[in-house]
Amino acid sequence: MARLVMKFGGTSVANIERIKNVARHVQREVEAGQDVAVVVSAMSGKTNELVAWCKEGAALYDAREYDAVVASGEQVTSGLLAIVLQDMGIKARSWQGWQIPIRTSDAHGSARIEAIDPAALNEGFARGEVAVIAGFQGVHAATGRLTTLGRGGSDTSAVAIAAAIGADRCDIYTDVDGVYTTDPRIVPKARRLDRVAFEEMLEMASLGAKVLQVRSVEVAMVHKVKTFVRSSFDDPADPKPGTLICDEEDIVEQQVVTGIAYSKDEAQITLRDVADKPGVAAAIFVPLAESNINVDMIIQVVSDDAKTTDLTFTVPTADYERARKILENAKADIGYEGIHGATDVVKVSAIGIGMRSHAGVAARAFKALSDKGINIRAITTSEIKFSVLIGAEYTELAVRTLHTLYGLDKA
Amino acid sequence: MARLVMKFGGTSVANIERIKNVARHVQREVEAGQDVAVVVSAMSGKTNELVAWCKEGAALYDAREYDAVVASGEQVTSGLLAIVLQDMGIKARSWQGWQIPIRTSDAHGSARIEAIDPAALNEGFARGEVAVIAGFQGVHAATGRLTTLGRGGSDTSAVAIAAAIGADRCDIYTDVDGVYTTDPRIVPKARRLDRVAFEEMLEMASLGAKVLQVRSVEVAMVHKVKTFVRSSFDDPADPKPGTLICDEEDIVEQQVVTGIAYSKDEAQITLRDVADKPGVAAAIFVPLAESNINVDMIIQVVSDDAKTTDLTFTVPTADYERARKILENAKADIGYEGIHGATDVVKVSAIGIGMRSHAGVAARAFKALSDKGINIRAITTSEIKFSVLIGAEYTELAVRTLHTLYGLDKA
Repeated sequence: MARLVMKFGGTSVANIERIKNVARHVQREVEAGQDVAVVVSAMSGKTNELVAWCKEGAALYDAREYDAVVASGEQVTSGLLAIVLQDMGIKARSWQGWQIPIRTSDAHGSARIEAIDPAALNEGFARGEVAVIAGFQGVHAATGRLTTLGRGGSDTSAVAIAAAIGADRCDIYTDVDGVYTTDPRIVPKARRLDRVAFEEMLEMASLGAKVLQVRSVEVAMVHKVKTFVRSSFDDPADPKPGTLICDEEDIVEQQVVTGIAYSKDEAQITLRDVADKPGVAAAIFVPLAESNINVDMIIQVVSDDAKTTDLTFTVPTADYERARKILENAKADIGYEGIHGATDVVKVSAIGIGMRSHAGVAARAFKALSDKGINIRAITTSEIKFSVLIGAEYTELAVRTLHTLYGLDKA
Repeated sequence: MARLVMKFGGTSVANIERIKNVARHVQREVEAGQDVAVVVSAMSGKTNELVAWCKEGAALYDAREYDAVVASGEQVTSGLLAIVLQDMGIKARSWQGWQIPIRTSDAHGSARIEAIDPAALNEGFARGEVAVIAGFQGVHAATGRLTTLGRGGSDTSAVAIAAAIGADRCDIYTDVDGVYTTDPRIVPKARRLDRVAFEEMLEMASLGAKVLQVRSVEVAMVHKVKTFVRSSFDDPADPKPGTLICDEEDIVEQQVVTGIAYSKDEAQITLRDVADKPGVAAAIFVPLAESNINVDMIIQVVSDDAKTTDLTFTVPTADYERARKILENAKADIGYEGIHGATDVVKVSAIGIGMRSHAGVAARAFKALSDKGINIRAITTSEIKFSVLIGAEYTELAVRTLHTLYGLDKA
């Protein structure tokens, strides 16, 4: 029998009326004669409420207790959807992460799934039951304590469960009808993509497109889970297929650039007149790494006399103040003249597996942005994407410019 | 080392500010050098919200799924209190029912505690940790599914945990400062009792005084758990002792009547001209019992010709319509002339272990009520209490009359 995992996010289960709509989507798939596992998020707003209580309880809260608190949101939805499905005459039962169990690491608040035992779910399928599974949560086997997978973790729950039960497909239902070439709120000409390669989706998610949790795409890629992104607000009787995330071999017409992403979660730090000597990079970046601050883009401009250099790099906005403090404390060690920073910057990225075989893709962008008077502060490139750091006020202009440049505008 | 269980109800943990106040009560007891287990309810209003969602999901919801949904309320509070305690420098961790485990029957929605393994809690005490336990919930071992103990179940969790860990005392913190001779909202002269016997408390709880869940008093009585009812709104630095529920031998000055309770959850049904023949009682009460309808008070008035009888009895208000329908369907079987009913009735009860050794206690009440023009529709008595069924409009008058009659008014 075919097997399907369906995942519904917070806005799709925001109240009982919407949960009943979700149940109609499930009914359609059950009536098609498949084993169905449904993974649900917390009702929208609930996780925020729970997180706010933890923070109000203590600024530095115990992540294990945080997990016990926030995992409750998905527990509620799983029971409610099971109740609604049963009322429609569909056999169903709820499963908490610890009941299956979904075993995770003990990195509370951002745990990684280590193993999912499919035995209990398989027995349920044999009884003709829909498995309604609380997403986002698991259990650390050695301590028996509840864990959560971090924001967006239900996506990863769904894909990992699909891999564990050998599902033919994993449908991620959300409040948009697929993956777009860029954010449609900024570019009205953005197009929905029929297919995106795993590698591209991974970059898009990492670079600011918030359709899927990054980790879920990694899991889908490793386990080759055919994953669709589609809308829960479609008519359950006549749903659209959405966007398929798949192997690049399954994409017939490959574009050079598939999508444009942007992220405002970047802050820029520049160290002026750093002594250009061996070991200076270590003096700067080791203390940041030790404080778990991720450094992203790095550029170095050697001065005319070649004795000093200006060094610019970016860190997540949330870590900006902490990073500056660390560098100020290490001033004597590093040896620099001045420190400057900016948080009003944005990283705009173009992604496409076609870049591998096409030279000069990024160069065209630099010229197009320069023609619009946009100053590029930093650049990073990889095999299938490049990113530029620019002033935040140019976000929309830059995204639209690149979207048009690479032929992504709607016909 | 002395051991203490502290239980806090929904109004005591209604928000973070109140949870911080609860933590100060816990701190006081920890600093007194005791092992402390804290049992918490859901934040007030949360259980109602969760129950309403279940009902909105389906009128006839699966009790197993209901339990998965509503058990989440206590989970949240347990984690939040652990966070707040840790922030005050007190070692603490949360425990869900299934983690300890608290094993229960599979009567979902009103499960009974069958066994509590104290091993994990004892290890926590050895590490110097306060155990913050989610009340109201447990797990059915064979199925691994979450269970709940019914409304007020956290009281029973607390007392059962006290018995399991051999606690010296169980303090039930609530929004009143103890057990009163009657409802102070009706009788301003009501007095707080220093001590109440287990048997009396059991009757009071059964008969409408809502301070403690009936089952918790049973467990306390069987396991001889010294239980205090006290207020969480007292100054944590200077709390009052509240009311001790204890063995009757520990009560020095026994009153004839200790308290007056009333319950509006009663409805009256009268069958007129029932044939006075063998088997008629069975024809009436067996079908009601089979539908899980509890019949409480029963009186029978034989008619002048002694061939027929009028039969009056009470059922819970929630079962009134159902009971009438069952009796109407069984009319031919039973053989009666007419059926009459009333829901505007109240049961007023007087409770006191002193009744065992004093004759005529109830008779004085009948006369006093009659003197006030109150018609008694039915009477039941037992060793340590009697109850009268009267018109609901006389509730306050009857309660005040009996409170004064038995010398319970404040000095």
